[in-house]
Amino acid sequence: MAGDLAAGKSKAAAACQVCHGMDGQATQPMVAHISGQQKEYLVAQLEAYRSGKRQHVQMSIISSTLTDADIDNLAEWYSSIEVSVTPPD
Amino acid sequence: MAGDLAAGKSKAAAACQVCHGMDGQATQPMVAHISGQQKEYLVAQLEAYRSGKRQHVQMSIISSTLTDADIDNLAEWYSSIEVSVTPPD
Repeated sequence: MAGDLAAGKSKAAAACQVCHGMDGQATQPMVAHISGQQKEYLVAQLEAYRSGKRQHVQMSIISSTLTDADIDNLAEWYSSIEVSVTPPD
Repeated sequence: MAGDLAAGKSKAAAACQVCHGMDGQATQPMVAHISGQQKEYLVAQLEAYRSGKRQHVQMSIISSTLTDADIDNLAEWYSSIEVSVTPPD
């Protein structure tokens, strides 16, 4: 699926941003940065949390509220964030 | 622990870069970008793979070869990569 970027942004604001930020940069310790992750990776992780294959106190609850379309749209949003990296000297 | 950046870089070259890149940007589909992830998150995920709590065909094998010091050093390396992000308009 192509995923709906605007719907993903809206859902991210409701379900994800408190911990992951709207730009996918974690706002709390022990939370993953998800900016620019590959879409298929994000979909797989959300599905793994939803199915119980991957366990996490917050993510297991939040993912249980997500439809397949929500997951597709959220993955579209966070994968669309451009990332540039600078390794240490 | 502080972690040894040079040792982490060396271990990353041996154990991680084929899939995750030296800069933590995945080189293959379905692989996580790990650049600039928070150190405690990286340590927790590597320990979860090593203990079997989190399962993945490649990561379960690779993590089984890592010592606590390796994990600390690898997390030091990948967490030290600076990341900047640009959300879509």
